[in-house]
Amino acid sequence: MDKIYEASLLYDFYGELLTERQRQVYEEVVLSDYSLSEVGADLGISRQGVHDLVQRTQKALAAYEEKLGCVARFVSIREKAEEIRNLTSDPEILKRVEGILGEL
Amino acid sequence: MDKIYEASLLYDFYGELLTERQRQVYEEVVLSDYSLSEVGADLGISRQGVHDLVQRTQKALAAYEEKLGCVARFVSIREKAEEIRNLTSDPEILKRVEGILGEL
Repeated sequence: MDKIYEASLLYDFYGELLTERQRQVYEEVVLSDYSLSEVGADLGISRQGVHDLVQRTQKALAAYEEKLGCVARFVSIREKAEEIRNLTSDPEILKRVEGILGEL
Repeated sequence: MDKIYEASLLYDFYGELLTERQRQVYEEVVLSDYSLSEVGADLGISRQGVHDLVQRTQKALAAYEEKLGCVARFVSIREKAEEIRNLTSDPEILKRVEGILGEL
């Protein structure tokens, strides 16, 4: 899986379990690709402080995924739903497939 | 949703985020329906202590669901996958449907 895609899935699933500060730093550094210095200046902490915060946040997200496995499950479900979409043109089935994809 | 079914889904999804003791008490009281007194005697804590532990565990699970919503998503995906199963006899589609249900 593409790194940034995986990072954003982890964040989508477990972001609510992070602290406000962890969310902010993760969004800016990992998802929006601002530099550590920029984000540090913005938050009034050192470049190293931002770096450590990002690392801890990534570890926390990885630990949630290790315990709950939601990202892996949802990637697998999405793949199969997309396969069903390619296998049929039945509008009733497609309606359910879109419903499933909408939950992911 | 049936209360005990919901309780077991919450536990399936988020049980790994609980402490060992929370898991033990929740399994015995909520999922296996042992009495507070029995579980208390077993763990060497009061009936009231077990009661409080169960309450806190239920709150923790409800808070995870409020933040992550995995159970609600799961129920919705399962429903739609079962509808697709009833709509088709195409073996290729059914294979994917079973794959989706297997992830849930």
